Amino acid sequence: MAWTLDTQHVPDLARGAAVLGTGGGGDPHIGALLATQAIETHGPVTVVPADELPDDAVVVMVAMMGAPTVMVEKLPSLDEVVAPLRAMEPLLDAPVTHIACAEIGGVNSTIPVAAAAALGLPLVDGDAMGRAFPELQMVLPTLFGLSASPMAFADEKGNTGVLHTIDNLWAERIARVACVEMGCSVIITLFPQSGAQFRQTMVLGSLSQATAVGAAIAQARTANEDPVARAVEELRGRELFAGKVVDVERATTAGFARGHARIDGEAGTLELSFQNEHLMAQLGDEVLVTTPDLIMVLEHDSGEPITTEALRYGQRVRVIAAPADERWHSPAALEMVGPGYFGYPVTTHRFDGTPDPGDRRGTADTTLAPTDTLEAVR
Amino acid sequence: MAWTLDTQHVPDLARGAAVLGTGGGGDPHIGALLATQAIETHGPVTVVPADELPDDAVVVMVAMMGAPTVMVEKLPSLDEVVAPLRAMEPLLDAPVTHIACAEIGGVNSTIPVAAAAALGLPLVDGDAMGRAFPELQMVLPTLFGLSASPMAFADEKGNTGVLHTIDNLWAERIARVACVEMGCSVIITLFPQSGAQFRQTMVLGSLSQATAVGAAIAQARTANEDPVARAVEELRGRELFAGKVVDVERATTAGFARGHARIDGEAGTLELSFQNEHLMAQLGDEVLVTTPDLIMVLEHDSGEPITTEALRYGQRVRVIAAPADERWHSPAALEMVGPGYFGYPVTTHRFDGTPDPGDRRGTADTTLAPTDTLEAVR
Repeated sequence: MAWTLDTQHVPDLARGAAVLGTGGGGDPHIGALLATQAIETHGPVTVVPADELPDDAVVVMVAMMGAPTVMVEKLPSLDEVVAPLRAMEPLLDAPVTHIACAEIGGVNSTIPVAAAAALGLPLVDGDAMGRAFPELQMVLPTLFGLSASPMAFADEKGNTGVLHTIDNLWAERIARVACVEMGCSVIITLFPQSGAQFRQTMVLGSLSQATAVGAAIAQARTANEDPVARAVEELRGRELFAGKVVDVERATTAGFARGHARIDGEAGTLELSFQNEHLMAQLGDEVLVTTPDLIMVLEHDSGEPITTEALRYGQRVRVIAAPADERWHSPAALEMVGPGYFGYPVTTHRFDGTPDPGDRRGTADTTLAPTDTLEAVR
Repeated sequence: MAWTLDTQHVPDLARGAAVLGTGGGGDPHIGALLATQAIETHGPVTVVPADELPDDAVVVMVAMMGAPTVMVEKLPSLDEVVAPLRAMEPLLDAPVTHIACAEIGGVNSTIPVAAAAALGLPLVDGDAMGRAFPELQMVLPTLFGLSASPMAFADEKGNTGVLHTIDNLWAERIARVACVEMGCSVIITLFPQSGAQFRQTMVLGSLSQATAVGAAIAQARTANEDPVARAVEELRGRELFAGKVVDVERATTAGFARGHARIDGEAGTLELSFQNEHLMAQLGDEVLVTTPDLIMVLEHDSGEPITTEALRYGQRVRVIAAPADERWHSPAALEMVGPGYFGYPVTTHRFDGTPDPGDRRGTADTTLAPTDTLEAVR
């Protein structure tokens, strides 16, 4: 059933999206601020479940592309948020009827709320990943053969562009260099699709799920229950590790934040490897979990999600894991978003620690030393 | 009066455009090949003088952007040549009625011929510079406040993009990074304008002039006259220097070919500095001529133009200079294309060797040592 997303839902959505964003997606407070401002100015947003979408609806995803650290310095205006859709719309056969999220993760769950409010359009309950990934072709619609084109981008200065590319990797490549030249933070609109396509290609209900996860953590805190345990329950996941952050290495290269974090606990030292999002968790030589399943870092007691750029020495944290949408485990999907793509020469491991049967890369070597891993990161 | 440009005009146009291209614009034979193929397939092209253009004509410029050296490796197809116009046209108020040249220079004088033939549209006799410059905002229409947007780009793979930018420097910046990512050679369409605007903002008759210059050189050779003297006469210029190329330094950086050439002659050593195009000629410490006036290198006896990338040790050459369109000498124009913009800290010098009264940068230092010049090149 459709529901109305008002300002009071924004903090829960932002918190839950920061959990599902697996460390990526930027400061959720920034995204929450933008969504709240938009709702206060233009009114609340209707969230429509996918099963109520007309077959011929025209749904477009809205997202931020670039370095979230830059966005903090220059919060997008509502003009910037609606500009790429205005640039793209003349090239579509019919006007856009619905807005959607490209990913559930940090600002990219709340920027579509701001866009929907500013445009006066409903938001569909779902996203293209069920988590966050760093590159724009890394969405389930790509696996269904959908084109990201026409895709549009806009900066805060008023520059816009619309691309038609031969595949979604080219959309990523051209938009990424334009984004970097335009100041490392642009708003993009992409993957125009029908209501019928949306039901087939997207992760359904993820906006509601993110809001529920965020609300569950807050409720557990109020009820003096364990917020981390509640988050694990909501996500049908497991707790991997608890400890103290003892080391964080991070470098921003080619528009991405790449690095490692080490967490000391009773069971040893957990090493997390990330490119914007957490992509691999290892305990000593043992690979515990890899992309595409979700690896999330929560503050030890409050359960508040911690993004990769907010990780600091001395933080007491708990690391949890949860299953990704099952479609991410197909051989084709693992080619696109498995650990091999990101330069980690290990077999895909599911959230429960088992090797992924979908991983066909034919390597039997599922373990490697942390130093090897460091060198393997591109 | 309108005239018909057929395959027999292409060699003269290509030769004359290579002269007016002042060293830039790429191998004229490649551009000639493309234009000839297009005319053979689609028929000859009608060249319309600007005074016969309807006021409400919709004129769009077609050009190659990128490194001409790359284009030799992957000659654009006619599909690529027409693709950016197809991408841009839905965003215009009316269909495109005429094609124009952005510059007179190498391939960028013959690619529009190919585009006009393939599209079945007339070509207007004129261009936006009356010479060649390396960046896309460096056209007279920019000085008249015209926007390059919507501007479109297309590569040989089938990727296209359309930009709307707040000024023409942003069009250059975003298109340049996209061009580099797409393989350093794209076809662009830009500066849609009306017939009335065309008459005000463009250099009129330059396509006919280029063809006449190219024909004059060929005729002088046949008549055993001096082709270089004939070219000087056609361009109302002067011969600066004659000698042997003794040194060429060249580096391709950020999509441009930058460098220096030294020519030994009876009067001493002439140094030419270039960024795609020749931008400054110095004899010892003395600045002879700078951009925006034209500096051209012709083969000593045949008068055949030599592009900057074709300059080689041992060539016997003559260097000639000629006046640019007078509008390039305004203070605003010299800010955009004067020697200071290219990093040469000298006063603008006209083709006849006199300091340019339009140069308001207030530097009295009109001389510098060749070593200083080398360091000043960005």
